[in-house]
Amino acid sequence: MAEEKKFPLLSNINSPADLRKLPESLLPQVCDELREFIIESLANNPGHFASSLGTVELTVALHYTMDTPDDKLVWDVGHQAYGHKILTGRRDRFDTNRKFKGLKPFPSPDESEYDAFIAGHASNSISAALGLAVSASLKGKDERTVAIIGDGAMSGGLAYEGLNNVSSSSNDLLIILNDNNMSIDKSVGGMSQLLISMHSSQLYNKIRHKAAMFFTKIGLLNKQRAASLTRFNNGLKAMLYHQQNIFEGMSVRYFGPIDGHDVIELVRMLNIVKNMKGPKLLHIHTVKGKGYKPAENDATSWHQPGLFDIETGERIISESGVPRFQDVFGETLVELAKSNPAVVGITPAMPTGCSMNKLMKEQPERFFDVGIAEGHAVTFSAGLGKGGAMPFCNIYSSFMQRGYDNLIHDAALQRVNMVLCLDRAGIVGEDGPTHHGAFDLAYLRPIPNITIASPYDECELRRMMYTAQQPNMGTFVIRYPRGRGSLTEWRCKLESIPVGTGRNLREGTDIALLTIGPIGKSIANVADEAAKEGISVAHYDMRFLKPIDEKILHEVANKFGHIITLEDGTVKGGLGSAVTEFMAQNGYTPRIHIMGIPDEFVEHGTTSELYHLCKMDKAAVWDVIQNIKKQGI
Amino acid sequence: MAEEKKFPLLSNINSPADLRKLPESLLPQVCDELREFIIESLANNPGHFASSLGTVELTVALHYTMDTPDDKLVWDVGHQAYGHKILTGRRDRFDTNRKFKGLKPFPSPDESEYDAFIAGHASNSISAALGLAVSASLKGKDERTVAIIGDGAMSGGLAYEGLNNVSSSSNDLLIILNDNNMSIDKSVGGMSQLLISMHSSQLYNKIRHKAAMFFTKIGLLNKQRAASLTRFNNGLKAMLYHQQNIFEGMSVRYFGPIDGHDVIELVRMLNIVKNMKGPKLLHIHTVKGKGYKPAENDATSWHQPGLFDIETGERIISESGVPRFQDVFGETLVELAKSNPAVVGITPAMPTGCSMNKLMKEQPERFFDVGIAEGHAVTFSAGLGKGGAMPFCNIYSSFMQRGYDNLIHDAALQRVNMVLCLDRAGIVGEDGPTHHGAFDLAYLRPIPNITIASPYDECELRRMMYTAQQPNMGTFVIRYPRGRGSLTEWRCKLESIPVGTGRNLREGTDIALLTIGPIGKSIANVADEAAKEGISVAHYDMRFLKPIDEKILHEVANKFGHIITLEDGTVKGGLGSAVTEFMAQNGYTPRIHIMGIPDEFVEHGTTSELYHLCKMDKAAVWDVIQNIKKQGI
Repeated sequence: MAEEKKFPLLSNINSPADLRKLPESLLPQVCDELREFIIESLANNPGHFASSLGTVELTVALHYTMDTPDDKLVWDVGHQAYGHKILTGRRDRFDTNRKFKGLKPFPSPDESEYDAFIAGHASNSISAALGLAVSASLKGKDERTVAIIGDGAMSGGLAYEGLNNVSSSSNDLLIILNDNNMSIDKSVGGMSQLLISMHSSQLYNKIRHKAAMFFTKIGLLNKQRAASLTRFNNGLKAMLYHQQNIFEGMSVRYFGPIDGHDVIELVRMLNIVKNMKGPKLLHIHTVKGKGYKPAENDATSWHQPGLFDIETGERIISESGVPRFQDVFGETLVELAKSNPAVVGITPAMPTGCSMNKLMKEQPERFFDVGIAEGHAVTFSAGLGKGGAMPFCNIYSSFMQRGYDNLIHDAALQRVNMVLCLDRAGIVGEDGPTHHGAFDLAYLRPIPNITIASPYDECELRRMMYTAQQPNMGTFVIRYPRGRGSLTEWRCKLESIPVGTGRNLREGTDIALLTIGPIGKSIANVADEAAKEGISVAHYDMRFLKPIDEKILHEVANKFGHIITLEDGTVKGGLGSAVTEFMAQNGYTPRIHIMGIPDEFVEHGTTSELYHLCKMDKAAVWDVIQNIKKQGI
Repeated sequence: MAEEKKFPLLSNINSPADLRKLPESLLPQVCDELREFIIESLANNPGHFASSLGTVELTVALHYTMDTPDDKLVWDVGHQAYGHKILTGRRDRFDTNRKFKGLKPFPSPDESEYDAFIAGHASNSISAALGLAVSASLKGKDERTVAIIGDGAMSGGLAYEGLNNVSSSSNDLLIILNDNNMSIDKSVGGMSQLLISMHSSQLYNKIRHKAAMFFTKIGLLNKQRAASLTRFNNGLKAMLYHQQNIFEGMSVRYFGPIDGHDVIELVRMLNIVKNMKGPKLLHIHTVKGKGYKPAENDATSWHQPGLFDIETGERIISESGVPRFQDVFGETLVELAKSNPAVVGITPAMPTGCSMNKLMKEQPERFFDVGIAEGHAVTFSAGLGKGGAMPFCNIYSSFMQRGYDNLIHDAALQRVNMVLCLDRAGIVGEDGPTHHGAFDLAYLRPIPNITIASPYDECELRRMMYTAQQPNMGTFVIRYPRGRGSLTEWRCKLESIPVGTGRNLREGTDIALLTIGPIGKSIANVADEAAKEGISVAHYDMRFLKPIDEKILHEVANKFGHIITLEDGTVKGGLGSAVTEFMAQNGYTPRIHIMGIPDEFVEHGTTSELYHLCKMDKAAVWDVIQNIKKQGI
């Protein structure tokens, strides 16, 4: 078999038990094969690339030293976990990764007993693993729990809350801090080697106090190291290197940093720490994209590169004449920043993902990347707005769930002037249930004082952004989906839309179709087809969910016996609910057909597959229209 | 005037400008008067007591040294801010504090220009103040911004996210860490005095590096101090004392700790630090309840003591034969923990507030107070549940907004077996808009896989809790209000309720009244009164919002032309919406009257005042019934 020739060791590893049969000396080769396998797979079936290359050795070392699945590995964001999937019985199906009905995009206990906890949103691993570890401890079970968290995820408040609680209960949690952004400084490295040897000694407890003093003293003398700290902005990282005591201070034993690409050393360290009682942290250094030069050199753009040519590193990008919504956002923000000196941009770690990197380049002093910290992003924006700036805060819809209270308490309640742009709203495709922006319309609608808008196309997005930054517009939310729009000529003039007004796109007499957002455009020509069959469908683009256009709703109620509502959001609580509430409360009695994301978590796949699955595509609207006809309009 | 005799200085302070006219030597007397004023006021008009006594000197010193309101004070949780209110032109109205149409319970920019930002939910001050400070800096404005945050609030992830971002932009933020839980250790105190003198020297920048080394060396020699650390569990606190470098590590200059009850010293320090460039933190020690012995001795129970006798410290508690819902929760949890060894309790800093202190006493190893950290509370519970424990996590409804993503991502998506009890759901009374649990039914309903229940009375709460902890019930939410129930005999047998079933409380033929939660009981006898006027009202207690009892809904739709829904939650998205959606989608056309919290932030007042204001009381239901009668049923 070709595979066996190319991957002589890997092709025989069908579970971690197989891996554990190998002598330690063969582990470097396993790592090489695993890395090669990941590169080949991802070149042909796109996914998260750079992160998983960085954790190859760690993954091999963990499964080699731990008794998985009895021992539990909790990965923080599943980006890191492709190697884990491949070693845990899913190698044969790895070519279905992220595909409809294929392997899930992130670790999921539904898929494998080796996936101890879900891992889509960052920073949850310490809290979750602590729960697993305490649960095991309460039952007197002798299982190990490991949280593997990246340094990026450590900027999230949830990670800190978890860390702050680790030492307050009886547990043996092991945290692996996978630090892949900061290279190892020589002097730090030398120091750390000393620390490791001492810390991991079996005599640790006895000499702990003395050792701490000794190393602090060495630290004192090491001026070169102190100077090197000034190069880094991130406070947490500085702390890590500055006496290594954020973790020790929190009563978590600290080991490291060690080279996360030295699998033999990792195995040695894990064997030492894995049976230690009490919570402990092992700090490892890795390189994102390790082993594939183009990715090592530019890990950000190789985070999720799409298809690429392995030999040349050339990315295979399908050209399109129409822009992505995120680019329209990014370009328009720069335009607005030029004309309105109060405009500033805030993103929680997604400058590239939401295209705010355009503002970053043009006006760096008016751009704020706050790290993976959605709550802070919203409250900080509210502070900026209260102080007189005009913040545009951009957060992926599903991550905005982390900033829900901040929006209610810090923005809406005070009627702060700020704009919240929710990218990746609605069904997002291959990233699946953890990432669908399904709930925003529903969770936003009950919040008083806010405006909720969603553009029909790119020009509408520009107009909504322009409208939102005018004086005294309060807290203004604009949500739009992942992916491309529909216009080649999208640089329309920036002009204002009256807040709370929808528009009639097409007159009709039999059925009213009420949509919000680009999904309305994606099915718009269903009305043409209906016309051919003698059914006259009126189409309204509502534009605003709140305040909703009651003039349109009265008109529709008076003219139509059947109303269809369609939104790229959950059927519970959004546009459909708003319309049914209005009708019931105003004594209208049309039949209303609510179309949207069903009341269940939607799986992953291409957006067209999922729209079809969820009955949100043109065919589904057509079916509803046909059914209405059958019943007699 | 009596007031002038008793408060000769305070009675002439009608704004901070008046305070600033006084010589520094009189400030201790101002503090004494202010403290006395607070004690007298609170004895007669209940409110948050112990926290504001702790900040008397700080408040005086801040307004004395800063140019308020041009300089901005951002209080973290308004509990601390009564002194601030009294000094900023609200002394005369302070007897209306927390009363309907009186002074607001927490700082609010709507009420006073001295209230720079809203302050109801903990841990937001650093992020908000950073926004204000950056905004000022961008405009080149020369105003100061101060965040005043308690050590408790520092356990929240949001505070950490804020702190982690403080040094990454140009700003002159001053953070005051009001540490009121840990007494000043003698050796630490001595050390800190040295630190202060050096740090605040005008030569600071020049000698910073040398000084740091010097003090670290002293720290090394001070073994007594290191030993004292082991007494404290909280990791953050330990860090504070362990080289004082969590803040320095985050590039925030650190000063302190100093005695927060020495107003002269506070003024001296604030005058030194207030004009320093860049972010800095002043760590002060205060005593909660300072100056009133009973409160100093038991700050927890004097957090919000209600009426009390100043001389004796005796609390004036109105006896009642019916229990508070929180006590029924607390007692029942202990019962369940006895019969089910998997049961554990988790609370984010509210063991007394939610009565989980009963479990804490009975089974301390199965009780987890995680600090002000709602996100962690939910994810940690999900981890516990995934590991096989049966967690009961109790969070106030409005604070649960902080854990929204955690519930969706970490619990519901994986169908974790766990119980989430939301106390203080619905209108909470005097704590006002930041604390009303108005949105939970609406924001929970779109989440797939979860059960949402609300008990009609105490026995139903017990049955729901019993039901929820049975095997494989998934993620189960029970929400109930602040305050007392309605039963003297509430220790009913623990038995199961079929999930998703409501019940008919009263037969009727004209109007169907659908309620959820105790609000249903509070208006139940409206049906008797209607009967007297010849209107037959059927009353259904829905019990579950999700899954909703469709059998009842079909029955109601077939029998009644008019349906009234009543819930102690927002009119947008909750029970009313669920009913209108169902009717529209199933082709029923009854007229539906949705009653609940209106789509605006509700002010503060007694619950009965607010229920009346929101048209959610019996009189309001009666009005709707009368109107229906007028229209002809």
